[in-house]
Amino acid sequence: MSRLSYGVSMSLDGFVAGDNQGPDNPLGVGGELLHAWMRELEVWRAQAGQTGGGSNASTKVLKEEGENIGAIVMGRNMFGGGPGPWSSEQPWRGWWGENPPFHRPVYVLTHYEREPLAMDGGTTFTFVTGGIHAALDLAREAAGGQDVALFGGGSTAGEYLAAGLVDEVSIHLVPVILGAGVRLFDNPDLASTLRLEQVSAMEAPGVAHLKYRVTR
Amino acid sequence: MSRLSYGVSMSLDGFVAGDNQGPDNPLGVGGELLHAWMRELEVWRAQAGQTGGGSNASTKVLKEEGENIGAIVMGRNMFGGGPGPWSSEQPWRGWWGENPPFHRPVYVLTHYEREPLAMDGGTTFTFVTGGIHAALDLAREAAGGQDVALFGGGSTAGEYLAAGLVDEVSIHLVPVILGAGVRLFDNPDLASTLRLEQVSAMEAPGVAHLKYRVTR
Repeated sequence: MSRLSYGVSMSLDGFVAGDNQGPDNPLGVGGELLHAWMRELEVWRAQAGQTGGGSNASTKVLKEEGENIGAIVMGRNMFGGGPGPWSSEQPWRGWWGENPPFHRPVYVLTHYEREPLAMDGGTTFTFVTGGIHAALDLAREAAGGQDVALFGGGSTAGEYLAAGLVDEVSIHLVPVILGAGVRLFDNPDLASTLRLEQVSAMEAPGVAHLKYRVTR
Repeated sequence: MSRLSYGVSMSLDGFVAGDNQGPDNPLGVGGELLHAWMRELEVWRAQAGQTGGGSNASTKVLKEEGENIGAIVMGRNMFGGGPGPWSSEQPWRGWWGENPPFHRPVYVLTHYEREPLAMDGGTTFTFVTGGIHAALDLAREAAGGQDVALFGGGSTAGEYLAAGLVDEVSIHLVPVILGAGVRLFDNPDLASTLRLEQVSAMEAPGVAHLKYRVTR
């Protein structure tokens, strides 16, 4: 069966997003610092439809993370928008622009039904109200034998991790202290359910790439 | 001036000690998992007066951390005992045994005065009631030009970090999720005061060694 891998940038004090996330500040206060290492890379900029950027030890890591990924699962927060129902008058198209950097089928967990949304560049957002297992099943089917990537932080990742559905965790540890925000490992079930084995730790400019295998 | 370096083992969810620390369980629930990588090393066992143990990529890291250290500062929790006054009837000699693994002058921050305690193997505990600056000054003087190491987690480390007194932070990141306990970066002042620059990230069996320089 295809694997589910989860990758995220985390501050040294354990936050994957800053405080006060919202439409005007999707990453929260200081959250952009978590992704600075990525934004300067050509490989990342190309995915996001931007030119320029360079290459360093993180390039290989980012390329490998995207390899063999056939579909993506994410929470509604990562797609964009608040917790309430979708507005039919002004349906929110996420905060990724018309050409999101995913270029694959994306399954968005939500409590509110909504028609799929086809964007430019191969990204389609499909909204799943049936829970984390249903979203993963749909993503696996769409991935056609390739792996599935889990994106985003906070509760969605915590649920998948606590349910034992994640096979591999990649943490890009950034030397910033946010002090407040969304913690990656905040789900109280994780201490008793999540067992990790270190696969690798790699130094790159301004970030440490840590890879773990979930053992069962 | 001699540098102040701080090294600590931390869980992936940011804890440097488990929950419910006490004389019967100085590291708290699950806390021993944070130091498993160390306990199997010959270099660590020799310092602790134990035989056996092996050698791996962590050996060099541990040796380097101890090099050029002339004195140590720690909080009362790390020395041992609760928060109250020292008992004159049964003065607590710490939870490190008669031959503690420090082999250097150690300055213990406390609110209660007490005579110095000379142990076997070159460790002397001197109790300092004058605060973090006073303890660091005494340790620097005792170190005679060598560096000073800060030991322990939680509030003492947080105070030194927030006061900008630490020059180097070494985090030994262990792939366990404790879920509760003492957080390293729990001091609310740290987000605005502590600026870190990654010096190195190194893979070793069961642990990632991360070194940061404090920038000012």
